Amino acid sequence: MQKLPRAVRAMTEQFERLPGVGPKSAQRLSFYLLHWPEARLQEFADKLIALKRDTVLCARCHNVSEHDPCDICSDTSRDVTKLMVVEQPLDVFAIERSDSYDGLYHVLHGSIAPLNNIGPDQLFLHDITARLTGVTELVLATNPTMEGESTALYINEYIQQQRPDTLGKLQVTRIGHGLPIGADIEYADGVTLKRALEGRRNV
Amino acid sequence: MQKLPRAVRAMTEQFERLPGVGPKSAQRLSFYLLHWPEARLQEFADKLIALKRDTVLCARCHNVSEHDPCDICSDTSRDVTKLMVVEQPLDVFAIERSDSYDGLYHVLHGSIAPLNNIGPDQLFLHDITARLTGVTELVLATNPTMEGESTALYINEYIQQQRPDTLGKLQVTRIGHGLPIGADIEYADGVTLKRALEGRRNV
Repeated sequence: MQKLPRAVRAMTEQFERLPGVGPKSAQRLSFYLLHWPEARLQEFADKLIALKRDTVLCARCHNVSEHDPCDICSDTSRDVTKLMVVEQPLDVFAIERSDSYDGLYHVLHGSIAPLNNIGPDQLFLHDITARLTGVTELVLATNPTMEGESTALYINEYIQQQRPDTLGKLQVTRIGHGLPIGADIEYADGVTLKRALEGRRNV
Repeated sequence: MQKLPRAVRAMTEQFERLPGVGPKSAQRLSFYLLHWPEARLQEFADKLIALKRDTVLCARCHNVSEHDPCDICSDTSRDVTKLMVVEQPLDVFAIERSDSYDGLYHVLHGSIAPLNNIGPDQLFLHDITARLTGVTELVLATNPTMEGESTALYINEYIQQQRPDTLGKLQVTRIGHGLPIGADIEYADGVTLKRALEGRRNV
């Protein structure tokens, strides 16, 4: 039986590592790229290398950015009394697109998922407490999934333990109405996100 | 509104150029890659560059290969009296996987598609005539689509015009039974391909 050229197999393996790309699609993508001129493949390769090189995680909110601190954290027009906890950088950009929030963010880079061996220590979670001084509302905008809900509950309890001084001064709310359970924040449209923000409630 | 980092946008644009990847999926893939270590991104980039550098098109059959002539064209155990015309290199590998053909191939790298401005001159089509000496059967295994069918008809007529000497000696057949119209050869399973080969008929 005829084998695929090594370079094509190697390329296919790379595509298979991407989420939602199966073996057949990966093979198809590889063969598709064979029609590209070399300069275009080089460009693709350059962007892959630039992706990590030209981005940083903001040391304060942990969002992906070109600068540290990021544009949002260094924007003096933002409302510093509001802090919103999200799971992923894409969630920040989705919320920003909905144009319905002017506070700051805190990106966890995941959610507590015991089945995947992800506990609070694997997330940017415990340093939230250091950011609460002067904050009057903490919006827990983790995804409305099992993991997201438990993460929200965990954060609420953790803050009560670690920062009892915020009691009565800090309102902890949960993003909620409008988002169907099991969905992803990053795929929600602006209106749904707006409703969800307007209908936020105390934990 | 907060903009995505330039490097992330540039990466997303690259993914959007791939077939079947929309803007949202492209963005998601970019953010997914942000979780990869730099060494892994470098590996992905290396494979992209190697893809074209380490492959050639066989000058005889135009299949993608590591050598020229390719492994199939230089395999002396193949039946040189049979020649099969396919649209894409992936079709060759699909037919080979089905283990039901031992002749040679000719890869067109497309099909005649007037709507996309692809005529016979944009394909490796006219050099088929030079390969017909000694061939007793030409299997037209273009896809069972509008474009594939017209390409098969075109090739049949073209050969009758250009190589009248093959009349009576060359049997031109069409791969057919078992393949549903509108499907792609590369996605067909081995059994279906075998049936299609067994049921081939004169044009």
